[in-house]
Amino acid sequence: MTFHSMWAELLPIGRSSASGGYRRFAWTGADTECRAWFRQQAESRGLTYELDRNGNQWAWLGDPADGDAVVTGSHLDSVPDGGAFDGPLGVVSSFAALDELRARGAEFTKPLAIVNFGDEEGARFGLACVGSRLAAGRLTVEQAHRLTDADGITLPQAMERAGYDVGAIGPDPERLGRIGAFVELHVEQGRALDLSGDQVGIASAIWPHGRWRFDFRGEANHAGTTRLVDRHDPMLPYAETVLAARREARLAGAVATFGKIAVEPNGVNAIPSLVRGWLDSRAADQATLDTVVTGVEKAAREYADAQGVELDVVRESFTPVVEFEHALRDELARILGKERDAVLSVPVLGTGAGHDAGILSGTVPTAMLFVRNPTGVSHSPAEYAAEDDCVAGVTALADVLEGLACR
Amino acid sequence: MTFHSMWAELLPIGRSSASGGYRRFAWTGADTECRAWFRQQAESRGLTYELDRNGNQWAWLGDPADGDAVVTGSHLDSVPDGGAFDGPLGVVSSFAALDELRARGAEFTKPLAIVNFGDEEGARFGLACVGSRLAAGRLTVEQAHRLTDADGITLPQAMERAGYDVGAIGPDPERLGRIGAFVELHVEQGRALDLSGDQVGIASAIWPHGRWRFDFRGEANHAGTTRLVDRHDPMLPYAETVLAARREARLAGAVATFGKIAVEPNGVNAIPSLVRGWLDSRAADQATLDTVVTGVEKAAREYADAQGVELDVVRESFTPVVEFEHALRDELARILGKERDAVLSVPVLGTGAGHDAGILSGTVPTAMLFVRNPTGVSHSPAEYAAEDDCVAGVTALADVLEGLACR
Repeated sequence: MTFHSMWAELLPIGRSSASGGYRRFAWTGADTECRAWFRQQAESRGLTYELDRNGNQWAWLGDPADGDAVVTGSHLDSVPDGGAFDGPLGVVSSFAALDELRARGAEFTKPLAIVNFGDEEGARFGLACVGSRLAAGRLTVEQAHRLTDADGITLPQAMERAGYDVGAIGPDPERLGRIGAFVELHVEQGRALDLSGDQVGIASAIWPHGRWRFDFRGEANHAGTTRLVDRHDPMLPYAETVLAARREARLAGAVATFGKIAVEPNGVNAIPSLVRGWLDSRAADQATLDTVVTGVEKAAREYADAQGVELDVVRESFTPVVEFEHALRDELARILGKERDAVLSVPVLGTGAGHDAGILSGTVPTAMLFVRNPTGVSHSPAEYAAEDDCVAGVTALADVLEGLACR
Repeated sequence: MTFHSMWAELLPIGRSSASGGYRRFAWTGADTECRAWFRQQAESRGLTYELDRNGNQWAWLGDPADGDAVVTGSHLDSVPDGGAFDGPLGVVSSFAALDELRARGAEFTKPLAIVNFGDEEGARFGLACVGSRLAAGRLTVEQAHRLTDADGITLPQAMERAGYDVGAIGPDPERLGRIGAFVELHVEQGRALDLSGDQVGIASAIWPHGRWRFDFRGEANHAGTTRLVDRHDPMLPYAETVLAARREARLAGAVATFGKIAVEPNGVNAIPSLVRGWLDSRAADQATLDTVVTGVEKAAREYADAQGVELDVVRESFTPVVEFEHALRDELARILGKERDAVLSVPVLGTGAGHDAGILSGTVPTAMLFVRNPTGVSHSPAEYAAEDDCVAGVTALADVLEGLACR
C-alpha cells in the first residue's frame, strides 16, 4: 500500500463537513476507526500487533524481547477542527518507510516497531500526551482517574466504553525499557523549513510550555439596569489580560495565547459572574517563560482589583524544556547528511509544540524529524504539506531507520 | 394562601443546587411545574383558567367578553442562574393583591385577569418576550418557527414536546382587545428606589435596547509554534472591543455589555478561528444608543483590520424606546399618592430592562410598578427584595387594581 493510498484511507475519518477539520478525539468513534485502520495496516504487513495497558498501539517487526528496539510513530487523534497532518503524517510515514526498507532489501539487526500513541492532543480531557505520559510514569493512575471530559465522563470511563480494560493503566517501564531509540516524524508547525528552503529538518529541543487557568470572578447582574459604577464585570479584566499576554510575549520573544474561554452564565443580557480563560505560553528557555507568565499574572491582578473582581490563577500543566539527546540527534544528522550535498547540512530546529517524543525523551533516547509546512499553519483545517515533501520525509525516515536498525 | 406561602411554594422549582440560581427555561420541566402552580392558584381562587394560543396563561375574574378588563401579572421563567424575584414577584403579588381586594370587600365593575406570559427572558431561544410578542403580532409565526435552542430544537417543537398545539400560535388581537389596562409589577433591577428611599415606584419608560453579534474571524493555528507576526488571532480585537464598549458607554451615560461569547475551536493550544461576542447596549434615548454602538463598531473594525481579522456585525434584536401611556401612569400616581404624605410623590423612573409590558404598550394602555431592590442586583442568584417591600408592593398593586377596576 503506497503512502498515497494509506493517506486517502485515513482522510475521511472524523472529518467535520461543517469545518473541513478533524474531530478525532480520544476514545470516540472516530478514534476507534483510526485504531482499526492502524491494526489493519500492521496485520497486512505481517507485523505483530499489540495494544498496551495505556491504550497505545504497537506493530512489531522482530522480537521485542531482544531489546534495543528502534521505534517510530506518532499519533492519530486531533485537536478540535485540526488538520490532516498533525500526527497521522508520522504514522503513515512510518508504515511507508518500512515498505521502502523492505523494497530496498534492508536486513534488520534490531527489532523495529511502529507506535500510535493514544490521546496525544488532549482535546477531550485537557491534558496532552496521556498515552505516553501514563507509560512513562509522567501521569499517575490517580491523576488519570480524575481527568474528565466536558460531559463529566472520566478517562477510565471513556476507555471502558471504548472497550479497554481500565484496571490496568499505569507505568509501563518494561515496555519502554525495550526501546533503544524512538524517532517521531511530524509535520512542522512553524515556517522555519519553508524560510530555509528545506524539505526535512531535525529537532533540537521542545520549548518549555505551560497552561494556566485564569478565573476572574465578578458579580452576575442585569446588563440593562446595572449602572457601570456598580458593576464587577469579569469580562473587562479578562480582556485587558488577553492584551497584556500578547504584549508580554512580544517583548520577550515568546508566544502567549488565550484560545479557550468559559463564561457563566454566558447570557446576552447578563453581566458574567465568571470568566475563565486559559493561557498557553511557551518560550525558548525557562527564564523567559517565567518572565512572560509573571508579567501577565501581575497585570491581570491589577486589572481585576480595579474592577472589584477576584482572580485565581492555577497552573494546569507544565512541561520543562526538552533537549533531545545529542548523540542520537547527531547520528540522524550524519545519516541524513550523507544523502545531501556536502556543503549543506540538515537544519536543526527548536519547536514550541509538545509531542510524545518530548515525554519519552526523559526515559529513552529520542529524536524528531520535521517535514516542511509551507504556510506554518497547524491545528487548523488549512494545515498542509506538499506530497513531494511528505515523500522526502518518508525517505529520510527510511534512511534513519536503516541507519539505526540495520547496522 | 398568603404571599409568604405562595412564595415558599415556588421557591424550590427549577433551582440549581450548584449555583443557587434559577433555570426555569421556556417549555422545560421547571417551566411546566411553574405553569401547574399558576393554574392551581387560579382554580383554588375560583378564577377561570385559560391557556392562550401562544402559551400564555390567564386567570379571569368576571367575563372577559365584557371588555375593558384590568389585567396584571408578569412571567415565571428565568435567565440562566437568575434570581427568585424577576418575574415571579409580579405573578405572586397579583394573586396576593386579588386576595387583599377580596378581604377589603372590593366590588369589581370590570373584569380582572392575572397573566403569566410565556418565555419572557428568551434564555432558551435567544429572543425575549416571545409570548407577548406573538400575541401582539410583534413576532411573526414564520420568525417563531425559525427560533432554535442550543440543541437545535425549534420553538414549535419545544412547545409540542411540552404538550401544546403549535398549529395555533400567532397574533391574538381579539384577546388583547379585551384589555383596558395592563399593569405589571416587577422587582426593580437597579438601585433608584434604594437611593431615593422608596419602597415602590412607577415606570416612566423603557430605554431603547439592542443586541448586536460581533463575529471576529481569524485563522486557527497552533498556539505553540505560530510566530506572533504570522497570527490572525480574533481574540485580540475582541478584547479591545470589550474595552471600547465600556469606554463608549461611560462617555455617553449609557450601558454596554459583552456577556456572551462563543469561540471556535476553543482549544487551549489553538489560536481561535472565530470569536463571536454579543453586545447588549441600552441608553435613555435613541440618539445616545446610536452613538455608543456606532463608536463600538468603528473601534472594532480598526482593531480587526490591524490584526488581519474579518469582522461582521449583525443587529440581532432591537426594541425602540417605550414611553408608558401618560394618562395611565398619572392615574397610578394619583391613586398611590393618596395613600402617602401629600409632600411626597411616588417616584417615576425609567429602566433599561425589557418587559412584556413594553411589548404590550404598543397595543394596550400599559403601566409598571417597581419594588425596591436594595442591592440593584438582578439576573443573579443574589437578586433580593425585602419581604416588607414586597408586601408594600402587593398593597400598592391592590390599590391600583381597586382604583382601576372598582370605579
